[in-house]
Amino acid sequence: MATERVKEILSWYRSDNPGTLTNIARLLNHGKLAGTGKFVILPVDQGFEHGPARSFAPNPGGYNPRYHVELAIESGCNAYAAPLGFIEAVAADYAGDIPLILKLNNHDVLQDEKDPMGAVTSSIEDALRLGCVAVGYTIYPGTADRRFLYEQLQALTLEAKEAGLAVVVWSYPRGSGLSKAGETGIDVTAYAAQLAAQLGGHLIKVKLSTEHVEQAEAKKVYEKYNIPISTLTDRVKHVIQSAFDGRRIVIFSGGAKSDTETVLNEARAIRDGGGFGSIIGRNSFQRPRPEALELLGTLMKIYKGELA
Amino acid sequence: MATERVKEILSWYRSDNPGTLTNIARLLNHGKLAGTGKFVILPVDQGFEHGPARSFAPNPGGYNPRYHVELAIESGCNAYAAPLGFIEAVAADYAGDIPLILKLNNHDVLQDEKDPMGAVTSSIEDALRLGCVAVGYTIYPGTADRRFLYEQLQALTLEAKEAGLAVVVWSYPRGSGLSKAGETGIDVTAYAAQLAAQLGGHLIKVKLSTEHVEQAEAKKVYEKYNIPISTLTDRVKHVIQSAFDGRRIVIFSGGAKSDTETVLNEARAIRDGGGFGSIIGRNSFQRPRPEALELLGTLMKIYKGELA
Amino acid sequence: MATERVKEILSWYRSDNPGTLTNIARLLNHGKLAGTGKFVILPVDQGFEHGPARSFAPNPGGYNPRYHVELAIESGCNAYAAPLGFIEAVAADYAGDIPLILKLNNHDVLQDEKDPMGAVTSSIEDALRLGCVAVGYTIYPGTADRRFLYEQLQALTLEAKEAGLAVVVWSYPRGSGLSKAGETGIDVTAYAAQLAAQLGGHLIKVKLSTEHVEQAEAKKVYEKYNIPISTLTDRVKHVIQSAFDGRRIVIFSGGAKSDTETVLNEARAIRDGGGFGSIIGRNSFQRPRPEALELLGTLMKIYKGELA
Amino acid sequence: MATERVKEILSWYRSDNPGTLTNIARLLNHGKLAGTGKFVILPVDQGFEHGPARSFAPNPGGYNPRYHVELAIESGCNAYAAPLGFIEAVAADYAGDIPLILKLNNHDVLQDEKDPMGAVTSSIEDALRLGCVAVGYTIYPGTADRRFLYEQLQALTLEAKEAGLAVVVWSYPRGSGLSKAGETGIDVTAYAAQLAAQLGGHLIKVKLSTEHVEQAEAKKVYEKYNIPISTLTDRVKHVIQSAFDGRRIVIFSGGAKSDTETVLNEARAIRDGGGFGSIIGRNSFQRPRPEALELLGTLMKIYKGELA
Amino acid sequence: MATERVKEILSWYRSDNPGTLTNIARLLNHGKLAGTGKFVILPVDQGFEHGPARSFAPNPGGYNPRYHVELAIESGCNAYAAPLGFIEAVAADYAGDIPLILKLNNHDVLQDEKDPMGAVTSSIEDALRLGCVAVGYTIYPGTADRRFLYEQLQALTLEAKEAGLAVVVWSYPRGSGLSKAGETGIDVTAYAAQLAAQLGGHLIKVKLSTEHVEQAEAKKVYEKYNIPISTLTDRVKHVIQSAFDGRRIVIFSGGAKSDTETVLNEARAIRDGGGFGSIIGRNSFQRPRPEALELLGTLMKIYKGELA
Repeated sequence: MATERVKEILSWYRSDNPGTLTNIARLLNHGKLAGTGKFVILPVDQGFEHGPARSFAPNPGGYNPRYHVELAIESGCNAYAAPLGFIEAVAADYAGDIPLILKLNNHDVLQDEKDPMGAVTSSIEDALRLGCVAVGYTIYPGTADRRFLYEQLQALTLEAKEAGLAVVVWSYPRGSGLSKAGETGIDVTAYAAQLAAQLGGHLIKVKLSTEHVEQAEAKKVYEKYNIPISTLTDRVKHVIQSAFDGRRIVIFSGGAKSDTETVLNEARAIRDGGGFGSIIGRNSFQRPRPEALELLGTLMKIYKGELA
Repeated sequence: MATERVKEILSWYRSDNPGTLTNIARLLNHGKLAGTGKFVILPVDQGFEHGPARSFAPNPGGYNPRYHVELAIESGCNAYAAPLGFIEAVAADYAGDIPLILKLNNHDVLQDEKDPMGAVTSSIEDALRLGCVAVGYTIYPGTADRRFLYEQLQALTLEAKEAGLAVVVWSYPRGSGLSKAGETGIDVTAYAAQLAAQLGGHLIKVKLSTEHVEQAEAKKVYEKYNIPISTLTDRVKHVIQSAFDGRRIVIFSGGAKSDTETVLNEARAIRDGGGFGSIIGRNSFQRPRPEALELLGTLMKIYKGELA
Repeated sequence: MATERVKEILSWYRSDNPGTLTNIARLLNHGKLAGTGKFVILPVDQGFEHGPARSFAPNPGGYNPRYHVELAIESGCNAYAAPLGFIEAVAADYAGDIPLILKLNNHDVLQDEKDPMGAVTSSIEDALRLGCVAVGYTIYPGTADRRFLYEQLQALTLEAKEAGLAVVVWSYPRGSGLSKAGETGIDVTAYAAQLAAQLGGHLIKVKLSTEHVEQAEAKKVYEKYNIPISTLTDRVKHVIQSAFDGRRIVIFSGGAKSDTETVLNEARAIRDGGGFGSIIGRNSFQRPRPEALELLGTLMKIYKGELA
Repeated sequence: MATERVKEILSWYRSDNPGTLTNIARLLNHGKLAGTGKFVILPVDQGFEHGPARSFAPNPGGYNPRYHVELAIESGCNAYAAPLGFIEAVAADYAGDIPLILKLNNHDVLQDEKDPMGAVTSSIEDALRLGCVAVGYTIYPGTADRRFLYEQLQALTLEAKEAGLAVVVWSYPRGSGLSKAGETGIDVTAYAAQLAAQLGGHLIKVKLSTEHVEQAEAKKVYEKYNIPISTLTDRVKHVIQSAFDGRRIVIFSGGAKSDTETVLNEARAIRDGGGFGSIIGRNSFQRPRPEALELLGTLMKIYKGELA
Repeated sequence: MATERVKEILSWYRSDNPGTLTNIARLLNHGKLAGTGKFVILPVDQGFEHGPARSFAPNPGGYNPRYHVELAIESGCNAYAAPLGFIEAVAADYAGDIPLILKLNNHDVLQDEKDPMGAVTSSIEDALRLGCVAVGYTIYPGTADRRFLYEQLQALTLEAKEAGLAVVVWSYPRGSGLSKAGETGIDVTAYAAQLAAQLGGHLIKVKLSTEHVEQAEAKKVYEKYNIPISTLTDRVKHVIQSAFDGRRIVIFSGGAKSDTETVLNEARAIRDGGGFGSIIGRNSFQRPRPEALELLGTLMKIYKGELA
């Protein structure tokens, strides 16, 4: 039976059909964090997004698609997320071993673009035939043509929800509308979380943010109301508040590989700020496997409150 | 990770897509028998098939749809199977708590029919929106118009497999082509299992059979080749052999309520004959809840080999 | 805000989408019984089902379709139910005045049939364009080809639920499988309620039943378990129990016109047995308008407990 | 490159699209008879058509679906034909090892029927997803409702040809229109071959015939024109002539298991009469495997002319 | 029966249906390299891509579409790939003689474009009616609007896989995002292989690469991790690694016509680096036929290891 916390989280999504609730529950009930309402998800789309060598050369086992799903299973992640090719490469052989999230769109870096736009690279039919519990889609708030992304997400979300799937929205501010600092500014990150929630995402993935406030109108408000944003924990709290006051699952990505202590401290801030967990790609698969397993294990202990 | 036995069973279904494999794995990996390759499933379609009082008066808690799914969850069944109304009554509140099997067709007894035919009462779309892992369909081999049933099953099976669902075929010989004894005759039961397998069912549900051999041509063969059919174990073995030599999951239903010792002895015969388990409705929900939980627990111990 | 009772009733339908919940709520929140969880609904399909003179000659105002909707509005009914023509005749002029239920199938009496089958006379699209909150469909359990009715209902129900409509199932046992007494026998009526619930109906309409028990197998059970069926209140209670233990809305029709005291006593029995109300056609519109208004008002007082 | 004989045979089907030609070529170019224009095909639908024990007890290895496809591959058959379940059980594991023919309809013997009708048990979509080169369908000329069969075949044939598949028609006269002897009468068999050809079958499967002439009008003609029908070779020749004068591939089934010499002599008659080969089920899989391999090898030698 | 190597390769594609596996097996099992897991494929789309004279004047036999398919058959290639017109010109006459790959999109050079985009010139229906085993599609990573290409490929891939076809992705970096040298830079080529694999391609065709590293971020990684890229063999190895660590079939095209020794040395590097073979167009059909046959024969010997 579901824990009280899982039941509480599911109660936020009562407008969804039981199929979608079931798939959200599968994410909540798998792995070492099962039942806690917390998440550690392994996403591996960097091969597409950054290229293979930049992604896998630091730990060449990762060129092999089986490496990642095995890492996610063995470490006890809630789910494994990847583009079509990586999912197809493992879905049959690991059927039932871990919830899968199919990334529906992807973007490469073979153009130097101010306003990047991903391409749809798989479909709801693919998610069903491959046994996925959820689909993922990346929006780039801040780009000139973001409305195409929002509209593409809208159509896919409708279809996914009819089919009983969950929808994970990667909300990554970028583009000509923002300064480089603005991409991770607290106001923009909070805005990104709100957008993803308003677009109907069940799980929302944002980056950790900085103290930077990008938009002038926002700045006035943050100052007027003294919104606390000076610590990472403060900012996580504000982002969670911005995603329906904690009534949507928001998980945070750490981005590029960094040292272990940084990753763990970020997790502490996420936990203490009421965040739902980490989606941790490069920081896990770019480490040697034993180190990755240890790091993921430690992360999970932090989320479970077994470690300060 | 899946156990070796689960992997072996999944290997029989390699022509299916990973979605279907995942849902078969979910059935194999849930409840007290998780990972053993054995099944105890709670089916409750008797309200439709026999009427409410005949089904639920012996234990009136069962009028309430929540009673059954809770019994299935608490006892540790692999799955709960029911028609649309009963599934709708619980799917949202128990999302993720137990694999659900939606019965797609049902038959009432408000006509005295020599050749009964069920009606389709729900759809693949329903199964997806309700978060089910499988759909179920009953065929009546031996009826005059069985070909309509086979064809309806064919269309639904194709659609289910495309959507990544598993298909459970209830194969219950009946109709003007058979004597009353013939309905559970060993030759007819083995034939029913074969038919369900050839029609593409992933899980097959048949009744336990008797020593009776119905068809003259079959009788000659059983005698000529000395096919052992004198004990229940022998007959289970023969039915399993008849369903692709053990390469399809065949589970057995006990039928009307009987005493505990009978039910347990039947389970022993199913186990010893290589059967995959029991689908046990009236014998569980028509008992008082504590007795039902005890019976189901004992059954599971028998299947796990913890009890002789 | 919805009353606690309305919230409780809506909680039984949590697998439905908010559109359907909203439309069930509209039925629960309209008229003099708003918020009580009780229903008095005016249905006028007798022009189709029995012919115009048999239906409207006793009170010729009823030939005019505006008569009925005005009666339903003025008396404070929860809803008005009718076939396509009657709904089209009033939907624009009374838009927003009362919840409308579109009867999707109808049957005339221009053939003397042992096994009647209705025709689909309107559609989900009609229900949407006419602003209806629900669709209605009549099944005849007990007829030889009832499976065609169940399958037609299945397809319409799926479509209605996707469109956020509520589904009302008129479950009227008839046909060659039943004796005349059997049509309203308690076992058969309880079975009819169960069937409608299993088929996914949100509201179920059955006739009041008699002490007659039609089916031999059922009779054994009613006797063995001493199921109380001697009073009308007992029988209402049993029917409510048979529709998911009170977790589906079941309303009762009185049938042909009878004297006021009978109608009121039936309502008392419905109320005391836990029934959800009356769907009362001929007993209202075949009376002169003032009498009808008075009768309906009294009925509502009974259901509100303002009258013994 | 195709042999001259293969090219000649393909030239008879020039109205078909290259996809269908390719799949006919695949049948012609596989196994020990590759390139000869001759066929030995292993069909195993008897589990469905006669029941498992009658089919597989004589050689219990055959309960296992892998047995048959391996026998067909190892013996060098042109193709393996079976219903959905048996094909699904092997298609992934033996992908590319032998051309597969999916039987689209099947008939069981659980009713004693004067006028049997099969059920459609799989589809063109199944044939494509399972990698089959052809679909098979059985008609029963002589039955009362044969037009339903012809019409079902028509629809499936159209769809198969659009998808580039070949169509194999099993044409087995039966039913209330014929005497028992008539089912294999030479006039009826020739008629059955003609019907299958006119219905658009690419490959036609008929039974070997007897000297019996069933129809009075036909009898007059056979006598008037002295059509030679006294030897099996004569009759094969006449059947081949009746299927577009040899411009359609007609293969013969031997039926129930018989002794080796009979089977071989029948093959000689088929060869000498210009037949295209044998479709040999029970006579192969009901023998012990080494005997079956030897028999099939000898048959192939006969068709290749390596043996008298 | 499939060789062990063929079985191993097929095991990488287990999420695909048996139809797709069968067609991949057909590619693996045809021609002189049958069973080795190696490929030499003849592609002739240059008439569309570069114009007829540039393509066929060097060896005018090639203006005739029959020339190419005959060359592919006679030389023992695994397959022949071409646009719709060339395939239609030969599919009927050579049905079954060689696996065909239908190029679904093509691009002409009648515009001087920085960011070329091909047009869809045929369909999955065409592939089926023409008897093709696979479809091919060209993406141009590096172009400004590459996402339209990825999305078109996504839709066609889904449809192809449902129909049991294999998908070949030509991944040719081009466009305003890249320098001329960058188009064949090792980092970009490896990225192109990764993209094609992530997009769900079964076979991937890339160009041989140079030591050039195009992207600054990549350069850092190649240097930091000392990825060996100095020899062609090194680079093939890295590209193979970049396509799921060798678990996707990657074949290499040589590009413009060059001298025989160069072609052979490239093949040696492909072989030694673990590449799966060559797709060799201009270097075969622009040579006189006897030279082309000799060259192709030598290539195949290299891939079989019969030649150093």
